[in-house]
Amino acid sequence: MHEIRTGFGDVLKRQLELAERNYELLADQGVRGINVMGAIGSGKTSLILRMAERLLARGVRVGAIAGDVAGDDDFKKFQAAGLPSALINTEDQCHLDPHRVRHALDEFPLTEVDVLFVENVGNLVCPADFPLGCEQDLVVISVTEGEDMIRKHPKMFAQTDVVAINKMDLAEVVGVDPQRLVEDYRRVNPHGRVVLTDAKSGRGVEELLSALGLIR
Amino acid sequence: MHEIRTGFGDVLKRQLELAERNYELLADQGVRGINVMGAIGSGKTSLILRMAERLLARGVRVGAIAGDVAGDDDFKKFQAAGLPSALINTEDQCHLDPHRVRHALDEFPLTEVDVLFVENVGNLVCPADFPLGCEQDLVVISVTEGEDMIRKHPKMFAQTDVVAINKMDLAEVVGVDPQRLVEDYRRVNPHGRVVLTDAKSGRGVEELLSALGLIR
Repeated sequence: MHEIRTGFGDVLKRQLELAERNYELLADQGVRGINVMGAIGSGKTSLILRMAERLLARGVRVGAIAGDVAGDDDFKKFQAAGLPSALINTEDQCHLDPHRVRHALDEFPLTEVDVLFVENVGNLVCPADFPLGCEQDLVVISVTEGEDMIRKHPKMFAQTDVVAINKMDLAEVVGVDPQRLVEDYRRVNPHGRVVLTDAKSGRGVEELLSALGLIR
Repeated sequence: MHEIRTGFGDVLKRQLELAERNYELLADQGVRGINVMGAIGSGKTSLILRMAERLLARGVRVGAIAGDVAGDDDFKKFQAAGLPSALINTEDQCHLDPHRVRHALDEFPLTEVDVLFVENVGNLVCPADFPLGCEQDLVVISVTEGEDMIRKHPKMFAQTDVVAINKMDLAEVVGVDPQRLVEDYRRVNPHGRVVLTDAKSGRGVEELLSALGLIR
Protein backbone atom coordinates (compact mmCIF):
# COMPACT_ATOMS: atom_id res chain seq x y z
CA MET A 1 0.00 0.00 0.00
CA HIS A 2 2.91 2.31 0.64
CA GLU A 3 3.90 3.50 -2.77
CA ILE A 4 6.85 5.64 -3.67
CA ARG A 5 5.88 8.23 -6.20
CA THR A 6 8.28 8.90 -9.02
CA GLY A 7 8.79 11.76 -11.43
CA PHE A 8 9.48 14.40 -8.80
CA GLY A 9 12.09 17.09 -9.42
CA ASP A 10 15.06 17.58 -7.11
CA VAL A 11 13.19 20.00 -4.89
CA LEU A 12 10.49 17.46 -4.26
CA LYS A 13 12.88 14.55 -3.70
CA ARG A 14 13.68 16.03 -0.31
CA GLN A 15 9.97 16.02 0.46
CA LEU A 16 9.82 12.36 -0.45
CA GLU A 17 12.66 11.55 1.95
CA LEU A 18 10.91 13.42 4.74
CA ALA A 19 7.69 11.58 3.94
CA GLU A 20 9.53 8.24 4.14
CA ARG A 21 10.72 9.14 7.63
CA ASN A 22 7.20 10.01 8.71
CA TYR A 23 6.02 6.70 7.30
CA GLU A 24 8.66 4.84 9.30
CA LEU A 25 7.79 6.72 12.48
CA LEU A 26 4.12 5.84 12.09
CA ALA A 27 4.91 2.22 11.21
CA ASP A 28 7.19 1.90 14.25
CA GLN A 29 4.33 3.04 16.45
CA GLY A 30 1.80 0.81 14.71
CA VAL A 31 -0.20 3.80 13.51
CA ARG A 32 -1.97 3.80 10.16
CA GLY A 33 -1.93 7.29 8.64
CA ILE A 34 -4.62 8.41 6.20
CA ASN A 35 -3.99 11.60 4.19
CA VAL A 36 -7.43 13.11 3.59
CA MET A 37 -7.49 15.55 0.67
CA GLY A 38 -10.23 17.50 -1.06
CA ALA A 39 -11.47 21.00 -1.83
CA ILE A 40 -12.81 23.33 0.82
CA GLY A 41 -16.32 22.34 1.82
CA SER A 42 -16.11 18.84 0.38
CA GLY A 43 -16.85 17.47 3.84
CA LYS A 44 -13.45 16.10 4.88
CA THR A 45 -13.88 16.97 8.57
CA SER A 46 -17.41 15.58 8.81
CA LEU A 47 -16.43 12.38 7.07
CA ILE A 48 -13.41 11.92 9.35
CA LEU A 49 -15.66 12.41 12.38
CA ARG A 50 -18.12 9.83 11.05
CA MET A 51 -15.35 7.33 10.34
CA ALA A 52 -13.90 7.96 13.80
CA GLU A 53 -17.27 7.19 15.43
CA ARG A 54 -17.50 3.83 13.66
CA LEU A 55 -13.88 2.94 14.40
CA LEU A 56 -14.13 3.94 18.07
CA ALA A 57 -17.26 1.79 18.38
CA ARG A 58 -15.09 -1.14 17.27
CA GLY A 59 -12.37 -0.32 19.78
CA VAL A 60 -10.01 1.19 17.21
CA ARG A 61 -8.33 4.29 18.65
CA VAL A 62 -8.43 7.31 16.34
CA GLY A 63 -6.52 10.59 16.21
CA ALA A 64 -6.64 13.51 13.80
CA ILE A 65 -4.43 16.33 12.55
CA ALA A 66 -6.25 19.37 11.18
CA GLY A 67 -4.40 21.18 8.38
CA ASP A 68 -5.66 24.62 7.44
CA VAL A 69 -4.23 27.84 6.07
CA ALA A 70 -5.65 29.64 9.11
CA GLY A 71 -8.22 29.14 11.83
CA ASP A 72 -8.96 26.27 14.18
CA ASP A 73 -12.56 25.35 13.29
CA ASP A 74 -11.73 21.78 12.27
CA PHE A 75 -9.27 21.26 15.10
CA LYS A 76 -11.94 22.28 17.60
CA LYS A 77 -14.34 19.77 16.07
CA PHE A 78 -11.79 16.98 16.53
CA GLN A 79 -11.21 18.10 20.10
CA ALA A 80 -14.94 18.23 20.81
CA ALA A 81 -15.21 14.65 19.54
CA GLY A 82 -12.59 13.66 22.11
CA LEU A 83 -9.97 12.66 19.54
CA PRO A 84 -6.28 13.16 20.32
CA SER A 85 -5.62 15.92 17.80
CA ALA A 86 -3.22 18.56 16.53
CA LEU A 87 -3.50 21.71 14.44
CA ILE A 88 -1.21 22.76 11.58
CA ASN A 89 -1.77 26.28 10.25
CA THR A 90 0.14 26.61 7.00
CA GLU A 91 -0.34 30.39 6.64
CA ASP A 92 0.53 31.07 2.99
CA GLN A 93 0.90 27.47 1.94
CA CYS A 94 -1.92 25.72 0.10
CA HIS A 95 -0.96 22.18 1.14
CA LEU A 96 0.54 20.22 4.00
CA ASP A 97 4.12 19.11 3.57
CA PRO A 98 5.96 16.27 5.34
CA HIS A 99 8.17 18.62 7.34
CA ARG A 100 5.24 20.37 8.99
CA VAL A 101 3.56 17.03 9.55
CA ARG A 102 6.73 15.73 11.19
CA HIS A 103 6.67 18.55 13.73
CA ALA A 104 3.05 17.70 14.52
CA LEU A 105 3.86 13.98 14.82
CA ASP A 106 6.75 14.67 17.19
CA GLU A 107 4.28 16.27 19.61
CA PHE A 108 1.47 13.80 18.99
CA PRO A 109 0.53 11.05 21.50
CA LEU A 110 1.08 8.35 18.87
CA THR A 111 0.96 5.55 21.43
CA GLU A 112 -2.69 6.44 22.05
CA VAL A 113 -3.94 5.90 18.49
CA ASP A 114 -4.20 3.14 15.91
CA VAL A 115 -5.45 5.25 13.03
CA LEU A 116 -4.41 8.85 12.37
CA PHE A 117 -6.40 10.97 9.93
CA VAL A 118 -4.35 13.84 8.52
CA GLU A 119 -6.76 16.37 7.06
CA ASN A 120 -4.97 18.29 4.34
CA VAL A 121 -5.61 21.93 3.35
CA GLY A 122 -8.77 22.35 1.26
CA ASN A 123 -7.29 22.35 -2.22
CA LEU A 124 -7.47 19.82 -5.04
CA VAL A 125 -4.18 20.73 -6.71
CA CYS A 126 -0.96 20.94 -4.72
CA PRO A 127 -1.56 18.34 -1.98
CA ALA A 128 -1.18 15.80 -4.82
CA ASP A 129 2.51 16.75 -5.06
CA PHE A 130 3.41 16.39 -1.39
CA PRO A 131 3.39 12.89 0.06
CA LEU A 132 3.14 13.14 3.85
CA GLY A 133 4.21 9.63 4.80
CA CYS A 134 0.70 8.28 5.21
CA GLU A 135 -0.10 4.70 4.34
CA GLN A 136 -3.12 5.69 2.32
CA ASP A 137 -4.60 8.66 0.51
CA LEU A 138 -8.27 9.54 0.39
CA VAL A 139 -9.79 12.27 -1.76
CA VAL A 140 -13.19 13.62 -0.78
CA ILE A 141 -15.21 15.43 -3.40
CA SER A 142 -18.68 16.87 -3.08
CA VAL A 143 -21.42 16.67 -5.68
CA THR A 144 -21.85 20.44 -5.16
CA GLU A 145 -18.49 20.98 -6.88
CA GLY A 146 -20.01 20.14 -10.25
CA GLU A 147 -19.64 17.35 -12.76
CA ASP A 148 -16.34 18.48 -14.20
CA MET A 149 -14.08 18.48 -11.15
CA ILE A 150 -12.36 15.15 -11.86
CA ARG A 151 -11.58 16.17 -15.45
CA LYS A 152 -10.08 19.37 -14.06
CA HIS A 153 -7.71 17.52 -11.68
CA PRO A 154 -6.63 14.31 -13.41
CA LYS A 155 -3.32 14.02 -11.55
CA MET A 156 -4.86 14.04 -8.08
CA PHE A 157 -7.33 11.33 -9.03
CA ALA A 158 -4.92 9.21 -11.07
CA GLN A 159 -2.70 8.76 -8.04
CA THR A 160 -5.39 8.35 -5.38
CA ASP A 161 -6.88 4.91 -5.00
CA VAL A 162 -9.83 5.74 -2.76
CA VAL A 163 -12.31 8.51 -3.56
CA ALA A 164 -15.43 9.47 -1.62
CA ILE A 165 -18.15 11.30 -3.53
CA ASN A 166 -19.76 13.11 -0.63
CA LYS A 167 -22.94 15.13 0.00
CA MET A 168 -24.92 12.56 -1.99
CA ASP A 169 -28.05 13.96 -0.30
CA LEU A 170 -27.58 17.10 -2.42
CA ALA A 171 -26.95 15.36 -5.76
CA GLU A 172 -30.51 15.79 -6.96
CA VAL A 173 -30.87 19.38 -5.73
CA VAL A 174 -27.72 20.49 -7.56
CA GLY A 175 -28.54 18.34 -10.60
CA VAL A 176 -25.29 16.40 -10.62
CA ASP A 177 -25.22 12.76 -11.72
CA PRO A 178 -22.64 10.97 -9.54
CA GLN A 179 -22.29 8.25 -12.19
CA ARG A 180 -20.60 10.76 -14.48
CA LEU A 181 -18.05 11.46 -11.75
CA VAL A 182 -17.55 7.72 -11.25
CA GLU A 183 -16.94 7.28 -14.99
CA ASP A 184 -14.44 10.15 -15.11
CA TYR A 185 -12.60 8.62 -12.18
CA ARG A 186 -12.52 5.14 -13.77
CA ARG A 187 -11.02 6.72 -16.87
CA VAL A 188 -8.02 8.23 -14.99
CA ASN A 189 -7.73 5.43 -12.42
CA PRO A 190 -9.25 2.11 -13.49
CA HIS A 191 -8.12 0.34 -10.30
CA GLY A 192 -9.33 2.92 -7.79
CA ARG A 193 -12.29 2.48 -5.48
CA VAL A 194 -15.03 5.05 -5.34
CA VAL A 195 -17.61 5.22 -2.57
CA LEU A 196 -20.78 7.34 -2.54
CA THR A 197 -21.10 8.96 0.87
CA ASP A 198 -23.21 11.40 2.82
CA ALA A 199 -21.48 12.38 6.03
CA LYS A 200 -24.69 13.88 7.45
CA SER A 201 -26.67 10.64 7.37
CA GLY A 202 -23.69 8.32 7.59
CA ARG A 203 -24.38 6.77 4.19
CA GLY A 204 -21.39 4.92 2.75
CA VAL A 205 -19.16 5.39 5.81
CA GLU A 206 -18.77 1.65 6.47
CA GLU A 207 -18.02 1.01 2.82
CA LEU A 208 -15.43 3.78 2.87
CA LEU A 209 -13.70 2.32 5.92
CA SER A 210 -13.60 -1.00 4.13
CA ALA A 211 -12.19 0.57 0.94
CA LEU A 212 -9.44 2.12 3.10
CA GLY A 213 -8.72 -1.28 4.62
CA LEU A 214 -9.53 0.01 8.12
CA ILE A 215 -12.29 -2.54 8.71
CA ARG A 216 -13.00 -5.92 7.13
CA MET B 1 -8.90 50.90 -7.93
CA HIS B 2 -5.55 49.61 -9.13
CA GLU B 3 -3.69 48.86 -5.99
CA ILE B 4 -0.09 47.74 -5.66
CA ARG B 5 0.21 45.02 -3.07
CA THR B 6 3.16 45.19 -0.74
CA GLY B 7 4.90 42.69 1.49
CA PHE B 8 5.91 40.33 -1.30
CA GLY B 9 9.28 38.64 -1.22
CA ASP B 10 11.82 39.07 -4.01
CA VAL B 11 10.45 36.15 -5.98
CA LEU B 12 7.02 37.71 -6.06
CA LYS B 13 8.26 41.20 -6.94
CA ARG B 14 8.89 39.95 -10.45
CA GLN B 15 5.27 38.79 -10.57
CA LEU B 16 4.16 42.24 -9.55
CA GLU B 17 6.15 43.83 -12.38
CA LEU B 18 4.61 41.44 -14.88
CA ALA B 19 1.16 42.21 -13.49
CA GLU B 20 1.82 45.95 -13.90
CA ARG B 21 2.60 45.38 -17.56
CA ASN B 22 -0.60 43.42 -18.05
CA TYR B 23 -2.49 46.23 -16.37
CA GLU B 24 -0.94 48.77 -18.74
CA LEU B 25 -1.71 46.63 -21.77
CA LEU B 26 -5.36 46.33 -20.74
CA ALA B 27 -5.59 50.04 -19.89
CA ASP B 28 -4.08 50.98 -23.28
CA GLN B 29 -6.78 48.94 -24.99
CA GLY B 30 -9.54 50.32 -22.77
CA VAL B 31 -10.27 46.89 -21.34
CA ARG B 32 -11.35 46.42 -17.73
CA GLY B 33 -9.97 43.17 -16.34
CA ILE B 34 -11.71 41.32 -13.51
CA ASN B 35 -9.78 38.54 -11.73
CA VAL B 36 -12.43 36.05 -10.60
CA MET B 37 -11.21 33.80 -7.79
CA GLY B 38 -12.87 31.13 -5.67
CA ALA B 39 -12.79 27.44 -4.80
CA ILE B 40 -13.78 24.74 -7.24
CA GLY B 41 -17.54 24.55 -7.58
CA SER B 42 -18.19 27.99 -6.12
CA GLY B 43 -19.91 28.96 -9.36
CA LYS B 44 -17.35 31.28 -10.92
CA THR B 45 -18.09 30.23 -14.50
CA SER B 46 -21.88 30.43 -14.10
CA LEU B 47 -21.66 33.83 -12.46
CA ILE B 48 -19.37 35.15 -15.21
CA LEU B 49 -21.84 33.90 -17.84
CA ARG B 50 -24.72 35.63 -16.02
CA MET B 51 -22.79 38.88 -15.72
CA ALA B 52 -21.84 38.65 -19.39
CA GLU B 53 -25.51 38.28 -20.40
CA ARG B 54 -26.45 41.43 -18.52
CA LEU B 55 -23.49 43.40 -19.86
CA LEU B 56 -24.03 42.28 -23.46
CA ALA B 57 -27.68 43.34 -23.18
CA ARG B 58 -26.37 46.82 -22.35
CA GLY B 59 -24.01 46.84 -25.33
CA VAL B 60 -20.90 46.20 -23.22
CA ARG B 61 -18.61 43.75 -25.02
CA VAL B 62 -17.36 40.92 -22.81
CA GLY B 63 -14.54 38.39 -23.11
CA ALA B 64 -13.30 35.65 -20.81
CA ILE B 65 -10.16 33.69 -20.03
CA ALA B 66 -10.67 30.27 -18.45
CA GLY B 67 -7.90 29.22 -16.07
CA ASP B 68 -7.83 25.58 -15.03
CA VAL B 69 -5.26 23.00 -14.02
CA ALA B 70 -6.53 20.76 -16.82
CA GLY B 71 -9.56 20.34 -19.04
CA ASP B 72 -11.56 22.79 -21.14
CA ASP B 73 -15.05 22.57 -19.62
CA ASP B 74 -15.22 26.24 -18.65
CA PHE B 75 -13.58 27.44 -21.85
CA LYS B 76 -16.18 25.54 -23.90
CA LYS B 77 -18.96 27.24 -21.90
CA PHE B 78 -17.52 30.67 -22.69
CA GLN B 79 -17.24 29.70 -26.36
CA ALA B 80 -20.80 28.37 -26.40
CA ALA B 81 -21.96 31.74 -25.02
CA GLY B 82 -20.27 33.44 -27.97
CA LEU B 83 -17.68 35.25 -25.86
CA PRO B 84 -14.22 35.90 -27.27
CA SER B 85 -12.29 33.57 -24.98
CA ALA B 86 -9.02 31.85 -24.24
CA LEU B 87 -7.94 28.83 -22.22
CA ILE B 88 -4.99 28.62 -19.82
CA ASN B 89 -4.17 25.13 -18.51
CA THR B 90 -1.72 25.51 -15.65
CA GLU B 91 -0.93 21.78 -15.32
CA ASP B 92 0.73 21.50 -11.89
CA GLN B 93 0.13 25.08 -10.82
CA CYS B 94 -2.74 25.89 -8.47
CA HIS B 95 -3.13 29.52 -9.56
CA LEU B 96 -2.84 31.78 -12.58
CA ASP B 97 0.25 33.95 -12.74
CA PRO B 98 0.77 37.18 -14.69
CA HIS B 99 3.22 35.60 -17.12
CA ARG B 100 0.74 32.96 -18.30
CA VAL B 101 -1.97 35.60 -18.47
CA ARG B 102 0.31 37.78 -20.59
CA HIS B 103 0.69 35.01 -23.15
CA ALA B 104 -3.08 34.67 -23.30
CA LEU B 105 -3.54 38.46 -23.61
CA ASP B 106 -1.03 38.63 -26.46
CA GLU B 107 -3.24 36.28 -28.47
CA PHE B 108 -6.54 37.77 -27.31
CA PRO B 109 -8.70 40.02 -29.54
CA LEU B 110 -8.59 42.83 -26.96
CA THR B 111 -10.02 45.38 -29.38
CA GLU B 112 -13.25 43.38 -29.40
CA VAL B 113 -13.96 43.59 -25.66
CA ASP B 114 -14.64 46.21 -22.98
CA VAL B 115 -14.64 43.88 -20.00
CA LEU B 116 -12.44 40.79 -19.64
CA PHE B 117 -13.21 38.24 -16.95
CA VAL B 118 -10.16 36.19 -16.00
CA GLU B 119 -11.38 33.07 -14.23
CA ASN B 120 -8.63 31.87 -11.92
CA VAL B 121 -7.92 28.26 -10.94
CA GLY B 122 -10.40 26.92 -8.37
CA ASN B 123 -8.42 27.48 -5.16
CA LEU B 124 -8.88 29.90 -2.29
CA VAL B 125 -5.24 30.12 -1.23
CA CYS B 126 -2.50 30.86 -3.76
CA PRO B 127 -4.36 33.07 -6.26
CA ALA B 128 -4.31 35.68 -3.47
CA ASP B 129 -0.52 35.93 -3.89
CA PHE B 130 -0.41 36.45 -7.65
CA PRO B 131 -1.78 39.73 -8.97
CA LEU B 132 -2.58 39.32 -12.66
CA GLY B 133 -2.85 42.95 -13.67
CA CYS B 134 -6.62 43.13 -13.44
CA GLU B 135 -8.33 46.31 -12.33
CA GLN B 136 -10.51 44.49 -9.87
CA ASP B 137 -10.64 41.24 -7.92
CA LEU B 138 -13.78 39.26 -7.20
CA VAL B 139 -13.97 36.26 -4.89
CA VAL B 140 -16.89 33.88 -5.33
CA ILE B 141 -17.76 31.58 -2.44
CA SER B 142 -20.60 29.13 -2.19
CA VAL B 143 -22.79 28.53 0.83
CA THR B 144 -22.09 24.81 0.28
CA GLU B 145 -18.49 25.40 1.38
CA GLY B 146 -19.59 25.80 4.99
CA GLU B 147 -19.70 28.65 7.48
CA ASP B 148 -15.98 28.64 8.29
CA MET B 149 -14.43 29.27 4.91
CA ILE B 150 -13.74 32.98 5.40
CA ARG B 151 -12.05 32.37 8.76
CA LYS B 152 -9.89 29.76 7.04
CA HIS B 153 -8.68 32.19 4.36
CA PRO B 154 -8.36 35.63 5.97
CA LYS B 155 -5.69 36.89 3.58
CA MET B 156 -7.73 36.28 0.43
CA PHE B 157 -10.72 38.10 1.86
CA ALA B 158 -8.79 40.93 3.52
CA GLN B 159 -7.38 41.98 0.17
CA THR B 160 -10.47 41.44 -1.98
CA ASP B 161 -13.01 44.23 -1.99
CA VAL B 162 -15.88 42.46 -3.73
CA VAL B 163 -17.19 39.09 -2.58
CA ALA B 164 -20.13 37.14 -3.99
CA ILE B 165 -21.78 34.60 -1.69
CA ASN B 166 -23.22 32.30 -4.33
CA LYS B 167 -25.66 29.37 -4.46
CA MET B 168 -27.95 31.24 -2.08
CA ASP B 169 -30.74 28.90 -3.25
CA LEU B 170 -28.95 26.11 -1.33
CA ALA B 171 -28.33 28.05 1.90
CA GLU B 172 -31.34 26.56 3.67
CA VAL B 173 -30.76 23.01 2.41
CA VAL B 174 -27.15 22.98 3.65
CA GLY B 175 -28.06 24.84 6.84
CA VAL B 176 -25.64 27.72 6.36
CA ASP B 177 -26.54 31.22 7.55
CA PRO B 178 -25.06 33.68 5.02
CA GLN B 179 -25.12 36.43 7.64
CA ARG B 180 -22.36 34.64 9.52
CA LEU B 181 -20.23 34.70 6.38
CA VAL B 182 -21.01 38.40 5.91
CA GLU B 183 -19.96 39.11 9.50
CA ASP B 184 -16.69 37.17 9.11
CA TYR B 185 -15.95 39.13 5.95
CA ARG B 186 -16.69 42.48 7.59
CA ARG B 187 -14.26 41.53 10.35
CA VAL B 188 -11.32 41.00 7.95
CA ASN B 189 -12.36 43.68 5.45
CA PRO B 190 -14.65 46.38 6.84
CA HIS B 191 -14.69 48.32 3.56
CA GLY B 192 -15.44 45.44 1.23
CA ARG B 193 -18.74 44.86 -0.54
CA VAL B 194 -20.51 41.55 -0.28
CA VAL B 195 -23.35 40.51 -2.56
CA LEU B 196 -25.63 37.51 -2.11
CA THR B 197 -26.02 35.78 -5.45
CA ASP B 198 -27.56 32.76 -7.08
CA ALA B 199 -26.20 32.28 -10.56
CA LYS B 200 -28.96 29.82 -11.46
CA SER B 201 -31.82 32.26 -10.94
CA GLY B 202 -29.81 35.40 -11.61
CA ARG B 203 -30.34 36.75 -8.10
CA GLY B 204 -27.88 39.48 -7.15
CA VAL B 205 -26.19 39.66 -10.55
CA GLU B 206 -27.10 43.31 -11.17
CA GLU B 207 -25.97 44.24 -7.68
CA LEU B 208 -22.69 42.42 -8.25
CA LEU B 209 -22.06 44.27 -11.51
CA SER B 210 -22.70 47.51 -9.67
CA ALA B 211 -20.33 46.53 -6.81
CA LEU B 212 -17.66 45.86 -9.44
CA GLY B 213 -18.30 49.27 -10.98
CA LEU B 214 -19.27 47.71 -14.32
CA ILE B 215 -22.74 49.25 -14.36
CA ARG B 216 -24.18 52.28 -12.58
